[in-house]
Amino acid sequence: MIRFKNARIMTMAGDKPFEVTQGEVWTQEDKVFLVGEPTDEQLKAAQFEREIDAKGNLIMPSFKNAHTHSAMTFLRSYADDLPLQEWLFNKVFPLEAKLTGEDVYYFAKLANLEYLTSGITASFDMYFELDDYVKACTEMGFRSVLCGAVSGDESNIERLEGNYLKYNGIDPLISFRLGFHAEYTCDIKLLERIAALAEKYKAPVSTHNSETAKEVKECIEKYGKTPTELFESLGIYNYGGAGFHCVHMSDNDMDIFKKRGVWAVHNPGSNSKLASGIADIRKMQEKGVGLALGTDGPASNNALDMFREMYLMTVLSKLKENDAAACDANSVLYAATVGGARAMGLWGCDTLEAGKQADLIMIDLSQPNMQPINNLSKNIVYSGSKTNVKLTMCAGKVLYEDGQFTGLDVQEIYAGAQERAQRIQNEVNP
Amino acid sequence: MIRFKNARIMTMAGDKPFEVTQGEVWTQEDKVFLVGEPTDEQLKAAQFEREIDAKGNLIMPSFKNAHTHSAMTFLRSYADDLPLQEWLFNKVFPLEAKLTGEDVYYFAKLANLEYLTSGITASFDMYFELDDYVKACTEMGFRSVLCGAVSGDESNIERLEGNYLKYNGIDPLISFRLGFHAEYTCDIKLLERIAALAEKYKAPVSTHNSETAKEVKECIEKYGKTPTELFESLGIYNYGGAGFHCVHMSDNDMDIFKKRGVWAVHNPGSNSKLASGIADIRKMQEKGVGLALGTDGPASNNALDMFREMYLMTVLSKLKENDAAACDANSVLYAATVGGARAMGLWGCDTLEAGKQADLIMIDLSQPNMQPINNLSKNIVYSGSKTNVKLTMCAGKVLYEDGQFTGLDVQEIYAGAQERAQRIQNEVNP
Repeated sequence: MIRFKNARIMTMAGDKPFEVTQGEVWTQEDKVFLVGEPTDEQLKAAQFEREIDAKGNLIMPSFKNAHTHSAMTFLRSYADDLPLQEWLFNKVFPLEAKLTGEDVYYFAKLANLEYLTSGITASFDMYFELDDYVKACTEMGFRSVLCGAVSGDESNIERLEGNYLKYNGIDPLISFRLGFHAEYTCDIKLLERIAALAEKYKAPVSTHNSETAKEVKECIEKYGKTPTELFESLGIYNYGGAGFHCVHMSDNDMDIFKKRGVWAVHNPGSNSKLASGIADIRKMQEKGVGLALGTDGPASNNALDMFREMYLMTVLSKLKENDAAACDANSVLYAATVGGARAMGLWGCDTLEAGKQADLIMIDLSQPNMQPINNLSKNIVYSGSKTNVKLTMCAGKVLYEDGQFTGLDVQEIYAGAQERAQRIQNEVNP
Repeated sequence: MIRFKNARIMTMAGDKPFEVTQGEVWTQEDKVFLVGEPTDEQLKAAQFEREIDAKGNLIMPSFKNAHTHSAMTFLRSYADDLPLQEWLFNKVFPLEAKLTGEDVYYFAKLANLEYLTSGITASFDMYFELDDYVKACTEMGFRSVLCGAVSGDESNIERLEGNYLKYNGIDPLISFRLGFHAEYTCDIKLLERIAALAEKYKAPVSTHNSETAKEVKECIEKYGKTPTELFESLGIYNYGGAGFHCVHMSDNDMDIFKKRGVWAVHNPGSNSKLASGIADIRKMQEKGVGLALGTDGPASNNALDMFREMYLMTVLSKLKENDAAACDANSVLYAATVGGARAMGLWGCDTLEAGKQADLIMIDLSQPNMQPINNLSKNIVYSGSKTNVKLTMCAGKVLYEDGQFTGLDVQEIYAGAQERAQRIQNEVNP
């Protein structure tokens, strides 16, 4: 059992604005055991392997990265400041074609390190070489929900179903959700087969959706429907799911999301850096669409930093609405934690309550950007930074604390990633 | 003499893209003594008080915060998610009215701590209670350029001239530039007197300029001119200066800036959070207008973090232009360092060269967000964070290193700021 005492605590289990209390948090194995003030009996019975004096710092649910492609770390700073098409077709695709499974293992480990520095304990990851990716996560103790990434024709449906059956249950830290790359990379037969699979397993389906204006325009030209309308007509969203990006959504699209319980996962860093646009957060909030946040992959962001995403989510909404009151801090904090967890199906990791998974962070308030303490939610969203992440715990294990990674050979990961990134560049540009 | 060895070095003295070399940086008292590879004679003659192994980390010029109101830290997270008018008139102004000089001293110290964590060694600061503010900076070894902040009628001109004469030369770390709050808070007689003062001292003048659409519209209604055109017609910009924000600038405004050598100081965090708009960076770059970056005050941002501003500067420009190639990383890095220094008149602190002031930072590359190293400028701007600031040196003194502030009682500053922020709130809302 690990004991945090003298803590400020934000469980995020109640309604917004989130209440902050004082007390203790105990974890046992992978779960939260106690939140609040222990009784004398509990104190007498407890055997602590470690006691941590939080010194008034804040303990809260960890961040959940609800959309990313972790292993793309090798492309970071390799192809920036380029038009989208040139970036994708001349830079990203040729290098990705050279990736091996072991490359993905190293590049994903690098990404997971960065997540931990930002207080992220789980990612909703869409990529390939899944065995190597899973190995990277489980070795590190990092939680991941794999998202199906099929594209092309219906011959690929068996791989999707195979992965669904293979990776669910493979490890307590790993799960797999049905998903596909995007409407524009899948033919209609494949989409129909995915809908049938959703029906067969009564399972949610997640995919890139309405990231760019071009994608939506071409879908309407092809099918007479937006991507969301198309998915709805096929029954793909009959059991919910998630749409990644959701920058160019119609009113009807949002209504479908609301009706089907589909989560809109925003990626404001990526959507800004690639000039895709600003999502209509206010309207989605008004309609009651569930919101989550993701970093997207490091080739298009380029950081994997939830503090950046939180700030961008609210200020871009304020800019779009021309209203400084738009998208308040509490709604952002919810999307980055509880919303993200639920969008990924991690209902056991969403809030800080006894019995839930011990996926939590300690926020260092004893830094200048957190002072004075007028309002903690606003401090985190508006002036918070990775520097305030003092401790990151996933499934009851402390993985990152005071700038150090527990039990990991970080230099070996850096060296492996650097060497492999260079090799891939050399293969493409000999 | 302090010696940094085994360093990557970006002097930023040449053209973009900025070259990165390997070598050493030596500082003597407040200045840079050597950059590059020392000769055997130099090594024999040198007496080092400290040798720092940079271990391949990057040494570069420090960031310069070209527009802020530091002491507004007390308002952080006190008044967010509010419409601009309500924020300013119901929250900011009533609390500011309660400020004492000693309050400003504490609140400015808190801001300076935060600047150091972000690699900022100088601020272009517009506020009041200047004696206390100067004391806060000089005690900490932090560089500041005070910006005149007069408003109202011409009776205030003597105070501006008095401050100009008083604070220039008062301390090597302090200078003072002519300035006023904004067109909309000054009557025309005062503006005329400011122009005369600029002429008398052949001095640049700096002010808030075209921050909001409302400000520009009302100026045109009143004078038939934009703020920039009005200042130009009065001769205020005859010796250059700086415009803070510059969100709503006409082509002619930009041409005036270019002609007069006036710097456009962008504050993308503040302009986003207050929903003021996105500056037209690309057009200013095309016209050759000098660009700098500032955080603005902590009531409207709310962080004092140059990494945030850099990222926002480029991605907001990409969004505005609908072009992922807009505003490349090197131009952003220039604005945050060299551009900022020159906008503030700190020509001795702009680049990393022998004879210049030793205002520099060491960027920790041994962190996941900086790996792999494909391109350092892009790493800093797109994935960099405050966590990468390993060391901050101002005027040859290490003020911040590995998360610690040298010789400062940080807890005393936090406690003083917290207590005073609370007192002021209680005075306004008893």
